Amino acid sequence: MKIRPLHDRVVVRRMEEETTTPGGIVLPGSAKEKPQQGEVVAIGEGRFVDGQLRPLSVKAGDKVIFGSYAGSTIKIDGEELLILNESEIFGVLEG
Amino acid sequence: MKIRPLHDRVVVRRMEEETTTPGGIVLPGSAKEKPQQGEVVAIGEGRFVDGQLRPLSVKAGDKVIFGSYAGSTIKIDGEELLILNESEIFGVLEG
Amino acid sequence: MKIRPLHDRVVVRRMEEETTTPGGIVLPGSAKEKPQQGEVVAIGEGRFVDGQLRPLSVKAGDKVIFGSYAGSTIKIDGEELLILNESEIFGVLEG
Amino acid sequence: MKIRPLHDRVVVRRMEEETTTPGGIVLPGSAKEKPQQGEVVAIGEGRFVDGQLRPLSVKAGDKVIFGSYAGSTIKIDGEELLILNESEIFGVLEG
Amino acid sequence: MKIRPLHDRVVVRRMEEETTTPGGIVLPGSAKEKPQQGEVVAIGEGRFVDGQLRPLSVKAGDKVIFGSYAGSTIKIDGEELLILNESEIFGVLEG
Amino acid sequence: MKIRPLHDRVVVRRMEEETTTPGGIVLPGSAKEKPQQGEVVAIGEGRFVDGQLRPLSVKAGDKVIFGSYAGSTIKIDGEELLILNESEIFGVLEG
Amino acid sequence: MKIRPLHDRVVVRRMEEETTTPGGIVLPGSAKEKPQQGEVVAIGEGRFVDGQLRPLSVKAGDKVIFGSYAGSTIKIDGEELLILNESEIFGVLEG
Repeated sequence: MKIRPLHDRVVVRRMEEETTTPGGIVLPGSAKEKPQQGEVVAIGEGRFVDGQLRPLSVKAGDKVIFGSYAGSTIKIDGEELLILNESEIFGVLEG
Repeated sequence: MKIRPLHDRVVVRRMEEETTTPGGIVLPGSAKEKPQQGEVVAIGEGRFVDGQLRPLSVKAGDKVIFGSYAGSTIKIDGEELLILNESEIFGVLEG
Repeated sequence: MKIRPLHDRVVVRRMEEETTTPGGIVLPGSAKEKPQQGEVVAIGEGRFVDGQLRPLSVKAGDKVIFGSYAGSTIKIDGEELLILNESEIFGVLEG
Repeated sequence: MKIRPLHDRVVVRRMEEETTTPGGIVLPGSAKEKPQQGEVVAIGEGRFVDGQLRPLSVKAGDKVIFGSYAGSTIKIDGEELLILNESEIFGVLEG
Repeated sequence: MKIRPLHDRVVVRRMEEETTTPGGIVLPGSAKEKPQQGEVVAIGEGRFVDGQLRPLSVKAGDKVIFGSYAGSTIKIDGEELLILNESEIFGVLEG
Repeated sequence: MKIRPLHDRVVVRRMEEETTTPGGIVLPGSAKEKPQQGEVVAIGEGRFVDGQLRPLSVKAGDKVIFGSYAGSTIKIDGEELLILNESEIFGVLEG
Repeated sequence: MKIRPLHDRVVVRRMEEETTTPGGIVLPGSAKEKPQQGEVVAIGEGRFVDGQLRPLSVKAGDKVIFGSYAGSTIKIDGEELLILNESEIFGVLEG
C-alpha cells in the first residue's frame, strides 16, 4: 500500500537512530533523541500560490532535515512514517 | 438520508478498528486507538482560491489518512461519520 | 417579525430533540444533547471574495448539519433561533 | 452632539429592557439580561475591500440584532450608546 | 517640539476629566474614569491599501472618541499625549 | 563595525535617560524609566508591498518615539543599540 | 555533507563566545550568554511574493545578527548549526 500525499505534504521515513553513544554506551529506547533526519518517500503535487500551482522543492529519495517535533506520525502497513508540510522541512542534505 | 458537504468539506467513514492485538489480546473499547483511516463518502464542490473554484483532490471511495483528532463526528441515520476539511487529510492510500 | 441576516450569516431553527432514548427512558432537559441539525430560516446576501459577491451555498428550507457549539442563540418573537456563519455549516442533508 | 463613526463602525441605541418577567415579577437591574437588539443611530462610510469602497448593509433607523458581548459602550451627552463593527451585527429585524 | 506620526497613527490630547460628580462630590485622581474623548493633534500620512495610499479619515482639531484602553501614552515636552492607530478611533464628535 | 538592517528594520540609539528627577533626587539605575526616544542610526532598504519596494518613512538622524517594550537590544562593538521594525515606531520628533 | 536550505531559510554558524569577561573572569559554560552573531553558511533560493521569486538579502559569508532565541539548532556531521528564517535576521554586520 502506498500513500499519495495531498498538496504540499511530504511523507518521510525517519533515519535509524544511533543506539550507541560515541563512548560506547548502549542507549535504551527512551533516552534516545528522535532523529531530525529522514528520507522523502512521497510528495504532494504542490500548492496554489497567486493562482499558479507551485511544485514542491523536495523529491522522493531526498535526505531532509526538520524540527524535532515536526509532523504527524502515521502507520502504513505497520511501518511508522512521518507526514510533514513542506514548510516544516529546513533543508536537503547533499553530498 | 445523504449529506452534501459544503465547500472544501469531506465526509469520511472511519475504518473498523482492530479489536484484537497482534498477540491475540482482545481490546476493550476504551483501550483502542481511534483509526486514522477512512473511506470518503461525499465531498464538497471545492473552494474559491484567487477567484477560481478549485475542486477537491479526493473523491468518493478514496481511502484517506488523517490525524487522530481531526474533524467533527456527526450522526446521519444513526451512523457515526466524520466531517473533515480537505486540509486535514494527509493523503490518499493507493494500491 | 423577520430577520434579514447580513453577509454570510444563516438563521437556523434547531430540530426538535428526542426526549426519549431508544430504550424508552424519558430524558430531562439537561441530559439531552443539543441537536446538530436544523432548518434554514433565512440567509444573507453572500460575501465579497476577490471583488465578487458570492451567494451562499444553502437556501431557506435546507436541512443543515453543524457543530454542537456553533453559532449564537438569538430570540425573535420569543422563539429561540440559531445564527451561524455559513462556514460553520458542515453540509446539507438530502433525500 | 453627534458622532460620525469611522469606516465600518455602527452606532446603536440598545432597546429598552423588559423590567417585568412574563409572570409579573419586577427584575432588579443586575438580574436583567442585556438586550441584544437596538436601533442604528449612525453608520460609517464603509470599508475598502479589493480597492473599492463598500458601503455598509445597515442604515440609520434599522433595528439590528447582535451578540450579548458585542461592541463597546460610549457616552455621548450622557446617553449610553453602543459602537459595533458591522461584522458584529447578525442581521436586521423587519416587519 | 512636534511629533509627525507615521502611517496610520494619530496623536490625541485627552480631554480634561470631570473632577466633580453630578452630585457635587470631588473625585480623587484614582477614582476618575479615564476620558474616552480627545482632540486630534497630528495625523500620519495614511496607509497603503491595495497599492494606493489612503489618507486618514480624521484631521487635526477633530474631537474623537475611542476605547478606554486604546493607544499608548507618550510624553512630548512633559505633556502626556496618546498615540493611536486610526482603527482604534470609533468616530468623530460633531456639532 | 556597522550594521545594515534588513527590510523594514531600523537601528536606534536610545537617548540618555534623566538621572535626576525634577525635584533634584538622583535616581538609581533600576528606578529609571527606559526612555522611549532615540536617534535612528541605520535603516533597512524597505519592504515589498503589493509587488513594489516601499522605502521606510524614517531616515538616519531622525529622532523617533516608540513604545517602552518595543524592539530587541543588540550589542555592536560594546554599544547597546535597539533594533525595531518600522511599524513599532510611533512617529518622528521635529523642531 | 552540506545542507541546501529551502525557500527563505538561512543556515548560520554561531560565532565563538567570549569565555573571559572584560575583568578577566573565566565564565563557565552555563553562565555564558549565547552569542547573537554568526556567519551565513548557506541560503535558500528565496520566496514567492506576489507571484515573483524574491532572492534573499543575505549571502554565504555574511556576518549576521539575530535574536537570542531565534531559529532551531541542527546537527550536520556533528557540528551544531542554526537554521533561521531570513525574517529572524536583524541585519548584516559590515566593515
